[in-house]
Amino acid sequence: MDPKAKREALRLLTNGMYILTSGAGDRLAASTVTWASQASFKPPLVMAAIQRNSNVLRCMREGGAAVLHILDRTQRTIAQKFFSTTKRAGDSLNGEAYTTGKTSAPVLRNLPAYLECKVIDIREEYGDHAIVILEVVDAQLRKHVKPLIVADSPWRYGG
Amino acid sequence: MDPKAKREALRLLTNGMYILTSGAGDRLAASTVTWASQASFKPPLVMAAIQRNSNVLRCMREGGAAVLHILDRTQRTIAQKFFSTTKRAGDSLNGEAYTTGKTSAPVLRNLPAYLECKVIDIREEYGDHAIVILEVVDAQLRKHVKPLIVADSPWRYGG
Repeated sequence: MDPKAKREALRLLTNGMYILTSGAGDRLAASTVTWASQASFKPPLVMAAIQRNSNVLRCMREGGAAVLHILDRTQRTIAQKFFSTTKRAGDSLNGEAYTTGKTSAPVLRNLPAYLECKVIDIREEYGDHAIVILEVVDAQLRKHVKPLIVADSPWRYGG
Repeated sequence: MDPKAKREALRLLTNGMYILTSGAGDRLAASTVTWASQASFKPPLVMAAIQRNSNVLRCMREGGAAVLHILDRTQRTIAQKFFSTTKRAGDSLNGEAYTTGKTSAPVLRNLPAYLECKVIDIREEYGDHAIVILEVVDAQLRKHVKPLIVADSPWRYGG
């Protein structure tokens, strides 16, 4: 296999950019993620591939819940805030205000839509990311938007 | 949960449109799919959620291989061809020429890039789609393109 062809073909897969949050007890984590897709209508499932050593994965494992937030295409700066380690200050995470959702995971206030989810399974046996199966248990659409996608951002994640 | 909010928030997840092909013995299947994403760098994995009663899933189960083809954003008519049952005529599937790849799955000739994959696992216990884990074993980039995405198409799949 030609590694360059593999990298470039994989980068033609289209992904959105999302903020995934989770919480377990006092610990909260939030991370920008891109490898996610719906996986079922009934029940409504989402699948996401998450870095195995990440805090957000640890929180999902312990807290059993996560919130997947959609970013508007004008919200690149918010995406960038969650490239780095999560820091809580008062009621904000990395400078973004949050509230508590129906689960143990924090809901960010300034994002146009989110899916609050129960963790159904975490499969770590396949590759360098865990495949997390999430069931949507609550959702909110605050504003109709055109979502931020990786191809329209300055970043790449894939290949 | 408000079903309308759930549907609309899920439809803000961004997906590309792909043609997924598979083969087992004499049987070939090809289908337009949208719920797919990379899932690991090492090994290079892709995850896809596929309708459980589909021929393409049956072929993947029996043949153990699949090819995920990227569509250029001008190739909506090719996407539409693979909404319906696969019909082979000579060396074409639903009117699209194919060749045999390195695996048992057919490779379509008129698409700009593809990922040839070995089926690693098929998980049917979660929802109304099977989650298929694929390892990329070969890839070709024939042309740099802007890929077709669901949001730029007349179709929706999700919610």
